[in-house]
Amino acid sequence: MWTILAVNVILSIGGSLVILNVVPKFRDMFVKAHLSGVDLNKKNKPEIPEAAGVISSCIFLIVMFIFIPFPFSKHFFNKEWGFPHQEFVQFIAALLSICCMVLLGFADDVLNLKWRHKLLLPTVASLPLLMVYYTNFNSTTIIIPKPLRFLLGHDLDLSALYYVYMGMLAVFCTNAINIYAGVNGLEVGQSAVIAGSLILFNIIELSGDCWSNHLFSLYFMIPFFFTSVSLYQFNKYPARVFVGDTFCYFSGMTVAVVAILGHFSKTALLFFIPQIANFVFSLPQLFHLLPCPRHRLPRLNQKTGCLDPSVFQFKDKSLSTLGRLVLKTYQLLGLIKVEQAEKDGELSQSTNCTLINLALKLTGPKHEKTLAAGLIILQVMCSGLAFIIRYPLASLFYDS
Amino acid sequence: MWTILAVNVILSIGGSLVILNVVPKFRDMFVKAHLSGVDLNKKNKPEIPEAAGVISSCIFLIVMFIFIPFPFSKHFFNKEWGFPHQEFVQFIAALLSICCMVLLGFADDVLNLKWRHKLLLPTVASLPLLMVYYTNFNSTTIIIPKPLRFLLGHDLDLSALYYVYMGMLAVFCTNAINIYAGVNGLEVGQSAVIAGSLILFNIIELSGDCWSNHLFSLYFMIPFFFTSVSLYQFNKYPARVFVGDTFCYFSGMTVAVVAILGHFSKTALLFFIPQIANFVFSLPQLFHLLPCPRHRLPRLNQKTGCLDPSVFQFKDKSLSTLGRLVLKTYQLLGLIKVEQAEKDGELSQSTNCTLINLALKLTGPKHEKTLAAGLIILQVMCSGLAFIIRYPLASLFYDS
Repeated sequence: MWTILAVNVILSIGGSLVILNVVPKFRDMFVKAHLSGVDLNKKNKPEIPEAAGVISSCIFLIVMFIFIPFPFSKHFFNKEWGFPHQEFVQFIAALLSICCMVLLGFADDVLNLKWRHKLLLPTVASLPLLMVYYTNFNSTTIIIPKPLRFLLGHDLDLSALYYVYMGMLAVFCTNAINIYAGVNGLEVGQSAVIAGSLILFNIIELSGDCWSNHLFSLYFMIPFFFTSVSLYQFNKYPARVFVGDTFCYFSGMTVAVVAILGHFSKTALLFFIPQIANFVFSLPQLFHLLPCPRHRLPRLNQKTGCLDPSVFQFKDKSLSTLGRLVLKTYQLLGLIKVEQAEKDGELSQSTNCTLINLALKLTGPKHEKTLAAGLIILQVMCSGLAFIIRYPLASLFYDS
Repeated sequence: MWTILAVNVILSIGGSLVILNVVPKFRDMFVKAHLSGVDLNKKNKPEIPEAAGVISSCIFLIVMFIFIPFPFSKHFFNKEWGFPHQEFVQFIAALLSICCMVLLGFADDVLNLKWRHKLLLPTVASLPLLMVYYTNFNSTTIIIPKPLRFLLGHDLDLSALYYVYMGMLAVFCTNAINIYAGVNGLEVGQSAVIAGSLILFNIIELSGDCWSNHLFSLYFMIPFFFTSVSLYQFNKYPARVFVGDTFCYFSGMTVAVVAILGHFSKTALLFFIPQIANFVFSLPQLFHLLPCPRHRLPRLNQKTGCLDPSVFQFKDKSLSTLGRLVLKTYQLLGLIKVEQAEKDGELSQSTNCTLINLALKLTGPKHEKTLAAGLIILQVMCSGLAFIIRYPLASLFYDS
């Protein structure tokens, strides 16, 4: 086991060195292909190559393709054991879902697909995965937490609903990372922290009963971690490349894949605390209860060089009752800052409902570099919290 | 078996209707994304959306994802039979290789990758496939044709070489279709004819011993055929979309996948007669023994509205000895037309070494529509020839 993990680490390091080497070479190709975006939060508004995530994800796929034979090497030499097709198909199906997602993410970056595609496509890409789950495990029973057992009993078979849940997990992971973005390095930084946390969790669980699931997860998470750290070198402040939807889709799907096939989707979600918070906070804007401008990232204050929260404007009358209620609640909880947009006018404005703007509202204007670092430290702290919930606290809710 | 094939046909027709419906809607998105190319052989040189192959290949993948459960449905209802993971992994690995190839083709269309990537990437994409071949069959023995048996014996185990051959098959199929192009509708038309021929071949072989391999091939070829025919409606003269490298890569890989996993790579190659002829004919230009201009497609004669063969220019002195020898041989065989480029000058010119230019040289200038139709009829006739070689003639070389 340790030899194979060592091979995985060596290939991952090789892959990450390739990324460090090729990203600068590809930058011109991206700009020539009109795959570039303006970095809105810099004074000179530079054009930055977009969708560089396609490089790291392709290198990830190549690393995995080269790695596949190793976990099965003992079966090549000793034919009598019989080849574990069941494990093998998990590998291939996981890579198919990831590859499909990279393709869709890249198509989205190039073609700017519509929202309905962004929800439909991850679902389609997760179909092969769900089918492997069905043929290999088909365990759809969940254990009910102790406080709820008086209501629901010890366990509950969700059957088809469990597949809906897993399909939605893929959609959620891809989009949750995608909307928690807008500051240099945040997409890749958060993904690297999540991957690092999952690696730690998998290593802890290697000594448990389900070690083989966690070993499987490590095979994917280690290359994902290394390639992301390499890409982070180019995406961190001041960004020399943007990673695009390609990276967010790739990243979300890779985590969803190991969470589903490794049977630890609840724990995996624990490492998404900031993403979940950001997603829930954003819902009123995503569902257009409140106006949602195209960009919700913080805006640069040209004078101070710091970032201020961005705002959306609205007329009080034009909001629905539900929209007004949400606005009031958020305001009472101190999550947004509402003020008059113009003197004596009807137009009001509120800070946008994202975790990034909330962080700026709570801690005051910040330089982009400081803000990015702070948000990544927040991600690390949330991972710490996740471990506390998963280990000491879980015994309150579940039998150990 | 027939019910499952019927489901496959119905899903394929559904997919092809979706393509007919969405391609027009996507045209603007492609142009906005600067994914477009000039149709050089039209008088007004229109900008045409490029890489529309990504639409048909994504629809193909979605059709396949939805179809996967059906061949295995009987195992879902009767758990005692044990699930055929071995067959299942073939499906998933085939789709992984195809999906990977679509991703690379699309990246090539967007980013204009270098030649070395075009050779390296199909090889990488075929790795999972070769591994499945290794674990499921690992039969690397070939039967020697009767006339050669006195030299090599009845059969020959190629072992590792056989894997090199299969890897090269994927590289060959993708690139052979890619370079036999340049006239509206030819890429998709030839692919549809090849798919149609393989479907006919598979149906004939369904009554044979290896019926399950041919059934597997049909599952892929039928959706491929239908989606290609739909795409052809937009790519045929006058082209409203170009299909791009995406389609050529997708198409070549799909054929290579079924040929490898279906164990009929020799027969599959028989349906590539025009592509092989074009490839061999092109070799001196591809390897730069003769100058190779960026575009070798025929050129429009503005006066007549017909296409003339395109030419490359050279100085006799600047050619290598081998280059001169090739040129002389081609000239003697009547494959190219060499003439002075300028009066009393040193510069000569020759028609480019492609099957399309040869067809124009032999039959005279033609309208693009007539030329495209002629080349597709040639492809159909070559498929007829392939069937003659495969059935009556094969008995001369192999025991039936």
